[in-house]
Amino acid sequence: MRVVVPFDARDAKTRLDPFFTSSERAAFAEAMLDDVLSAIESAGGSPDVLATAPIDLDVPVTVDERSLDTAVNDILAAAGPDNPIAIVMADLALATPRALDRLLTAEGDVTIAPGRGGGTNALVVRHPDFRVDYHGASFLDHLRIAAEVGATVREIDSMRLATDIDERADLAELLLHSDGKAAAWLRDAGVELATENGRVGVRRID
Amino acid sequence: MRVVVPFDARDAKTRLDPFFTSSERAAFAEAMLDDVLSAIESAGGSPDVLATAPIDLDVPVTVDERSLDTAVNDILAAAGPDNPIAIVMADLALATPRALDRLLTAEGDVTIAPGRGGGTNALVVRHPDFRVDYHGASFLDHLRIAAEVGATVREIDSMRLATDIDERADLAELLLHSDGKAAAWLRDAGVELATENGRVGVRRID
Repeated sequence: MRVVVPFDARDAKTRLDPFFTSSERAAFAEAMLDDVLSAIESAGGSPDVLATAPIDLDVPVTVDERSLDTAVNDILAAAGPDNPIAIVMADLALATPRALDRLLTAEGDVTIAPGRGGGTNALVVRHPDFRVDYHGASFLDHLRIAAEVGATVREIDSMRLATDIDERADLAELLLHSDGKAAAWLRDAGVELATENGRVGVRRID
Repeated sequence: MRVVVPFDARDAKTRLDPFFTSSERAAFAEAMLDDVLSAIESAGGSPDVLATAPIDLDVPVTVDERSLDTAVNDILAAAGPDNPIAIVMADLALATPRALDRLLTAEGDVTIAPGRGGGTNALVVRHPDFRVDYHGASFLDHLRIAAEVGATVREIDSMRLATDIDERADLAELLLHSDGKAAAWLRDAGVELATENGRVGVRRID
């Protein structure tokens, strides 16, 4: 199955500023992208990257400077029962082949893996009329859009797919649950687990 | 299977102070407990409650004022291959019968559903020597303890079991993904979704 991975190659992971510098954020984002692409390939998917600027990768890259919604919806116009297309976010660095296999093999016109805080972290679309709207509580919007076009929806209940890495607290999840390139990058950068109020967070050592 | 649900009947959900008053926190915690007990029963489990103080419920209640670890480990002393015992936290208000079924039917001497921030939200123990230590990054501690006693571990990758409701931001998950008693309680209390920076949060209206 074609698995499209949108990637911001210009100013990635802005919510990790100032915990990381701009160049660190770019390097960390690329390490997460590498982990995601590897997991997709291990799950039997065929990943390609939809990037906001040119980037050198071992998989096909399409550069599209338009908004995420516009670019993705152009791609989804080709989706249908015989041509499923998946959209998987580039910061799902906890994603395992097993979790992605559950996503790619689930039945339903639209399969959604919700993200924390109402997001949509991964989608498989098998219905020609479904379109995305990633702004705000996109999970609820996508349920509504699916209902409007008469598409059945299947939710994937996965902690690994629900955990997009956007904020400082999310970094703890990577250190706890991954041994991929992004987790290694964090450790090399001196980021380690730190016990905070109730949940475990991170700190950075010199 | 016996499913023990620890419940703080004295001062529940302190991290929701001051968003809720003390009596509101107690009522909200009981609504979540109701949801969890119902989901366990629907999944075919036999729930009982391990409470820090007397509480009136339709399921058996054991009052134990000792620490959570001590009380749970006393119970786990009876666990074994022919007597699996599950420990499920009372604030997993997103838990569905389907998610709990995955937990209760998974194979392994110890089955763990990790929680956000390194917690352990649900466990099934089939090994006589495994013991809990819920302080700090308990997920990592439980992996270590299982290794020390030679117990195999199976992880359950579930967003619904990973999402314990402790902090204000967690309330959004309930409004997004549940139509149970706790979600209804929130709506009655005037809590609604509010779009914040990146993820959807909550606000309270008069």
